[in-house]
Amino acid sequence: MKKYTNISDIKNFSKAIQEALHLKKNPLEFSELGKNKTLGLLFFNSSLRTRLSTQKAALNLGMNPIVMNVSGDAWGIEFEDGTVMNTSTAEHIKEAAAVVSQYCDIIAVRAFPTLTDKAKDESEQVLSSFVKYASVPIVNMESATAHPLQGFTDAITITEHKKVNKPKVVLSWAPHVKALPHAVANSFIHAMQSMDVDFVITHPEGYDLNPKIIGNTPVIYNQGEALKDADFVYTKNWSAYNDYGKVLNTNTNWTITKEKLGAAKFMHCLPVRRNVVVEDAVLDSNSSIVIEQANNRTFAAQWVLKKILEDLK
Amino acid sequence: MKKYTNISDIKNFSKAIQEALHLKKNPLEFSELGKNKTLGLLFFNSSLRTRLSTQKAALNLGMNPIVMNVSGDAWGIEFEDGTVMNTSTAEHIKEAAAVVSQYCDIIAVRAFPTLTDKAKDESEQVLSSFVKYASVPIVNMESATAHPLQGFTDAITITEHKKVNKPKVVLSWAPHVKALPHAVANSFIHAMQSMDVDFVITHPEGYDLNPKIIGNTPVIYNQGEALKDADFVYTKNWSAYNDYGKVLNTNTNWTITKEKLGAAKFMHCLPVRRNVVVEDAVLDSNSSIVIEQANNRTFAAQWVLKKILEDLK
Amino acid sequence: MKKYTNISDIKNFSKAIQEALHLKKNPLEFSELGKNKTLGLLFFNSSLRTRLSTQKAALNLGMNPIVMNVSGDAWGIEFEDGTVMNTSTAEHIKEAAAVVSQYCDIIAVRAFPTLTDKAKDESEQVLSSFVKYASVPIVNMESATAHPLQGFTDAITITEHKKVNKPKVVLSWAPHVKALPHAVANSFIHAMQSMDVDFVITHPEGYDLNPKIIGNTPVIYNQGEALKDADFVYTKNWSAYNDYGKVLNTNTNWTITKEKLGAAKFMHCLPVRRNVVVEDAVLDSNSSIVIEQANNRTFAAQWVLKKILEDLK
Repeated sequence: MKKYTNISDIKNFSKAIQEALHLKKNPLEFSELGKNKTLGLLFFNSSLRTRLSTQKAALNLGMNPIVMNVSGDAWGIEFEDGTVMNTSTAEHIKEAAAVVSQYCDIIAVRAFPTLTDKAKDESEQVLSSFVKYASVPIVNMESATAHPLQGFTDAITITEHKKVNKPKVVLSWAPHVKALPHAVANSFIHAMQSMDVDFVITHPEGYDLNPKIIGNTPVIYNQGEALKDADFVYTKNWSAYNDYGKVLNTNTNWTITKEKLGAAKFMHCLPVRRNVVVEDAVLDSNSSIVIEQANNRTFAAQWVLKKILEDLK
Repeated sequence: MKKYTNISDIKNFSKAIQEALHLKKNPLEFSELGKNKTLGLLFFNSSLRTRLSTQKAALNLGMNPIVMNVSGDAWGIEFEDGTVMNTSTAEHIKEAAAVVSQYCDIIAVRAFPTLTDKAKDESEQVLSSFVKYASVPIVNMESATAHPLQGFTDAITITEHKKVNKPKVVLSWAPHVKALPHAVANSFIHAMQSMDVDFVITHPEGYDLNPKIIGNTPVIYNQGEALKDADFVYTKNWSAYNDYGKVLNTNTNWTITKEKLGAAKFMHCLPVRRNVVVEDAVLDSNSSIVIEQANNRTFAAQWVLKKILEDLK
Repeated sequence: MKKYTNISDIKNFSKAIQEALHLKKNPLEFSELGKNKTLGLLFFNSSLRTRLSTQKAALNLGMNPIVMNVSGDAWGIEFEDGTVMNTSTAEHIKEAAAVVSQYCDIIAVRAFPTLTDKAKDESEQVLSSFVKYASVPIVNMESATAHPLQGFTDAITITEHKKVNKPKVVLSWAPHVKALPHAVANSFIHAMQSMDVDFVITHPEGYDLNPKIIGNTPVIYNQGEALKDADFVYTKNWSAYNDYGKVLNTNTNWTITKEKLGAAKFMHCLPVRRNVVVEDAVLDSNSSIVIEQANNRTFAAQWVLKKILEDLK
């Protein structure tokens, strides 16, 4: 594998899931593979799970992780071409990406969207600049429009927990006080479209996601109808896509309750706002698999790093 | 050992001191013990000694340390139960602690008190939430009311430097411009109460510490009387406990001078404000053992991590 | 080697360059030398290249790097002697340096100048305090007046790329919107004065650097004349030295263009402001060797750490 910026970089999705589950049982089997190799983790935004699980994955493979909070530790980075850099940014991405490539064998990047400039976000300015100007493989630790380490994790978790061959999986929008990105929802949709599941999306009208990503996946505006007989309910807030980045409603009717969940397993990428997105009773019950889901982040990242390391040789 | 949140977690205190001194002479004797194990160091507050010495201790045991400044690097954490999280905190401690436990074999936490809400501080909200919701052992890197890595270090240092079987040890309050926590004083008192020393506490009236911690230890309001014939003078500022978190006076009469110190050794946990807490002449003399004391932080932490690692097996 | 604070700490400069180039070809040849040794990297200022390349160098030697952003992670440090510390600084450099020496075998420090207090900057207050009070070797990761890891790197890069025995090297001032330090220019001058090159400096009048550093190196105020027949053009902005820390002009006539560069190679320490210091056409051409220059930072640092480690034994 030459990079991991999107779910589609995984060529054989079901095989990848099985290999990741194998790594989960044998996390140190390839602990020599990454010896004397360095993973640079560049954070333009906050991170807990991604920060720790990606480092853990690198350590399991014998790699040396080096973490950098770009904003606080280094220089303001310019992404526009041809600009006269006489204002606040001190270093152009052309140099930054090429330079980091001198010290790191793989570069992982987190860079959230603006949620105000749709065209800029959809161009994936930060991530695609790293892909373009770095001379080493790039791993997406959540970009403007995709969070493929999370999406792959979610597929692994559903595979692990499913009781029927083709479970029913529902992606249900949830209320939130802040405008959140579409990345997690997008990559979850990609992952589900790559698996043999009965998949539906439900959200209030106005919250329709990018139609190119939705494709043929059914969207139902009635949450109750969508949740019926679900095996997995994946809950996530996102801001409007058409009325870009706007919070159209914070309707608590969409909060997931134990009653709505029924016999389904509850999933969320975390962090989750309790009693806004989902009530305590769900998270504190055995129906919630969010912690196991977070645990699988390590093995999703480890699979990705392993495939990239194998191709470096 | 299943956790280290308080001096009382050390069952055989004098044996532990001897084992820590053995580690000091043989820091790499157990360098395979922590192999492929990860120590997560979570800082809610500033740290120099604790940050570096705990990492060094982990490295001596072959562990991989991962450092996270919670406030800057991750998400605002909610500690209250049952709250509707529609304001500033983005992640509940129930998830945060459980999730970090997926990536780290041991979690070390630093979280200072509010010094405005006595009940909250005494409940040790942050530390005890980690103990409750993490699934791995917790190490206290200074909490609202205790700094047991420091207290253990202090006991090691006194044992190393004592010239008589039962030295006289004085904990002397010192002036300071800011309101400081009680944690260092509390754990030092615990440590001294666990050793065979002649121990007295001295401070201005109004600065009495928690009577449950003081117990039968004599408190003398006259500094000169208390310091008489001392072998070790441990100096530390703290804010008032009864008039909680208040600075009642900044009386420089309480500053430690060479004259007051006499033949005693001077100790302080550091950082120390020169010519406020203690005059230059003391710190710059051979009577000061603060740097050796700081050095012992490594071996106190290493002993603790070693005991916890042994119990993980 | 007992420390590396200045280019002059390298006793045999041309041998050092050859040894660094050998390390570049064999980066893991001495990967056991630094085993169980810790490098503390203390940053008082932002850093990208230095942060990553120095860690990479330490890892190549088997060392454990520990990074600390002093301002954000730890306590405000006092550098004045005899001060009554009752204001904002919480820890004196005497303790800070001595304490970090307990946990780290080598300490690397980055501390930029004030650019407002010339005497303070020239005293190298931060760096020289570390040298004075630490008990372990100090490495300069850019101080008020010197950046010797960069200067050594530059010499390595010129040696690698030169086509004639004694190339012509020009240090050319460039415009910039902010007041920048003299450290890079100073250490580059030191490095060039230590090599067999035809070296000239060019800058607008008023930008003369410290005459003690310039020594006999020719200074030409006419950029065109200076650049004539150059093999290497090293471009760097600095603020005025006589009218200390002032930006006297931002004259874009001094920007390096492809035309001005001619057949020379373009060098810069980075970060570089595009179309202010140098036009895109230069950086995006094969004439630019700034990325290879950045790559050599690793091997300059690795040579320095290796020499210091060898002397620790």
